[in-house]
Amino acid sequence: MSRLIALTTDFGASSPYVAQMKAVLLNALPEAVLVDVTHAIPPRSIRDAEVVLRGAAFQFPVGTTHVVVIDPGVGTARQPIAVQARGLTFVGPDNGVLALALGEAHARAVCLDRPAFFREPVSATFHGRDLFAPVAAELAAGLPLTEVGSPLEHWQPSTLPQPMLTTGTADGETLVADSFGNLLTNLPARAIVPQAQVWVAKRPVRQVRTYGEAASGELVALVGSDGYWEIAVRDGSAAALLQGSQHRVRSAVEV
Amino acid sequence: MSRLIALTTDFGASSPYVAQMKAVLLNALPEAVLVDVTHAIPPRSIRDAEVVLRGAAFQFPVGTTHVVVIDPGVGTARQPIAVQARGLTFVGPDNGVLALALGEAHARAVCLDRPAFFREPVSATFHGRDLFAPVAAELAAGLPLTEVGSPLEHWQPSTLPQPMLTTGTADGETLVADSFGNLLTNLPARAIVPQAQVWVAKRPVRQVRTYGEAASGELVALVGSDGYWEIAVRDGSAAALLQGSQHRVRSAVEV
Amino acid sequence: MSRLIALTTDFGASSPYVAQMKAVLLNALPEAVLVDVTHAIPPRSIRDAEVVLRGAAFQFPVGTTHVVVIDPGVGTARQPIAVQARGLTFVGPDNGVLALALGEAHARAVCLDRPAFFREPVSATFHGRDLFAPVAAELAAGLPLTEVGSPLEHWQPSTLPQPMLTTGTADGETLVADSFGNLLTNLPARAIVPQAQVWVAKRPVRQVRTYGEAASGELVALVGSDGYWEIAVRDGSAAALLQGSQHRVRSAVEV
Repeated sequence: MSRLIALTTDFGASSPYVAQMKAVLLNALPEAVLVDVTHAIPPRSIRDAEVVLRGAAFQFPVGTTHVVVIDPGVGTARQPIAVQARGLTFVGPDNGVLALALGEAHARAVCLDRPAFFREPVSATFHGRDLFAPVAAELAAGLPLTEVGSPLEHWQPSTLPQPMLTTGTADGETLVADSFGNLLTNLPARAIVPQAQVWVAKRPVRQVRTYGEAASGELVALVGSDGYWEIAVRDGSAAALLQGSQHRVRSAVEV
Repeated sequence: MSRLIALTTDFGASSPYVAQMKAVLLNALPEAVLVDVTHAIPPRSIRDAEVVLRGAAFQFPVGTTHVVVIDPGVGTARQPIAVQARGLTFVGPDNGVLALALGEAHARAVCLDRPAFFREPVSATFHGRDLFAPVAAELAAGLPLTEVGSPLEHWQPSTLPQPMLTTGTADGETLVADSFGNLLTNLPARAIVPQAQVWVAKRPVRQVRTYGEAASGELVALVGSDGYWEIAVRDGSAAALLQGSQHRVRSAVEV
Repeated sequence: MSRLIALTTDFGASSPYVAQMKAVLLNALPEAVLVDVTHAIPPRSIRDAEVVLRGAAFQFPVGTTHVVVIDPGVGTARQPIAVQARGLTFVGPDNGVLALALGEAHARAVCLDRPAFFREPVSATFHGRDLFAPVAAELAAGLPLTEVGSPLEHWQPSTLPQPMLTTGTADGETLVADSFGNLLTNLPARAIVPQAQVWVAKRPVRQVRTYGEAASGELVALVGSDGYWEIAVRDGSAAALLQGSQHRVRSAVEV
């Protein structure tokens, strides 16, 4: 395995919680190399975390362990889980945030039901520090997945809405805004064909290939760097122009 | 000693100051492993830094060097200090921010009064870069504490208010809000007994063990992950509901 | 060369883009040590990035590779470039953001025009991940600058306004606010002599050496830690007091 451990949380920049997780990881695995994916997921937003992981998770080197703690159900019956897929390991709650990994072909998953691997006493409110981090350190150190839990029988699906796709038409939505105000959608590149008209929030928008092809202030649709369509305003913010981050996106070939 | 150096500042995410401190540390100790505790302490808020360190400081591995730069008095007569306690080292200004470490049994402390260890010329406004970082690198590299300064004779106390505790009653306050809007108090777990009624800002609140035990939107009191009581709203923000982060918290056993 | 790679972007704390760049760097150079300069440059603000790099870039150890991605022109004809100066390497777009390095005596620069070094397929919107990161990893691994591109023939100047300096007078401006609300100017220390009167936004301000010399709430001018004059309010925010971050700063010796 690898010493690389990537962290995704909704703990925020000012909280002590990220540092506490890092401290536990470094105690358990002093040679760990910690990489922040982000800690600025909006509080409790599984959707935002899913979009971030869609773009970033599998870009990391094989052997990386992802610890993902967006965990509004901490202390309830939600399952703590670990998943291995495509050579990477994921540790986090079973609430949809790891659905991407669970949906991979040949994914293997366990329910983390073995307290011997936890940091005792396990608090009722911070499983990131007391459960997910210690298990992640064990897995990053090379412990087999089957050692840390029992086979996972059922799990929660993704919280992301699925688009409706037919030949020549697509019916999807924008999911979140990035820091530039670009709106990331659930429509993969192939869902919209070059000759199709695109509408966002019922406005017609032009397809372009780069921001530079748009006029300043123009609302456009383009394929973003993670392979999904995004809605952008050149030199501006699509989220501000459309007053929000969640809108319907439709396309159809006009005949 | 260890190569682990943990950084806590109020420099903010957008400033160049964190990077300058890191550059000085990496110049002096190329094998240093730098970990951000947080740089989002509200400007000049010693109180917020004390609460973050209360939760995180001693979770780090023995040998870690903490550099703590919340330093509104930079350039004045406030003392720069270093403290060793429980196997960890702390470097920062003497303004209360290191009171936690100074208060530990067997803590040892020095005043950093030896310019030979500073980065010359020492600026009047940035001792984090010019004084604390170079000294921290020396200590992390193994230099004994007594080499970098003279024994500390007197120091500033904590800025955190102390609770009033008697058998069956507790009189404390909320100190800060975390990124979820949970309000962290100065009441340790043992201060409130299970049968006691708790009031926050004169409202009665129910004791629970986990967020999941509360109803959605309910204001509750529970023991947080750092061993102190916190005030929370399930699926919401206690700071927003109570309009601020500083409120009185009382408990009494009703007879 | 060094394994140290420093990152400066406007991607924001919540985006997946920083993590994607880090993943590419760690895939290409597993032993890389990644240091965040900042990812909180305001979207598309080359000016803010230039001020951050003015203070931080050359503080890093010799051998460091800086990857700088403030790239509003991504996908257009703007040149991707790499620069070596004073023992450090810089990779980023040619839009002024690397003007500091290009302006150094003995700087060497190339246009990154060799797709063999890129991550294929190169997206139209994210050259940070697909072009700058892979080239930076090669340079950090020791590949000579001349291997990754053709000699740079022309380049864009800095976006920072230049001050007007004469004997005894200075005419400059504040450029950006830091997280404390201090306003950083384009006037180097030597531009204002001790006996000169200073005005900011037409208000007279007093010269001081440290924040501690000012009265609480007083607007003052002092030489900041990066060797340039800054405008500050003790225990407050100059940006808030003056309602903005861009103001004229003048000084003259009164006779």
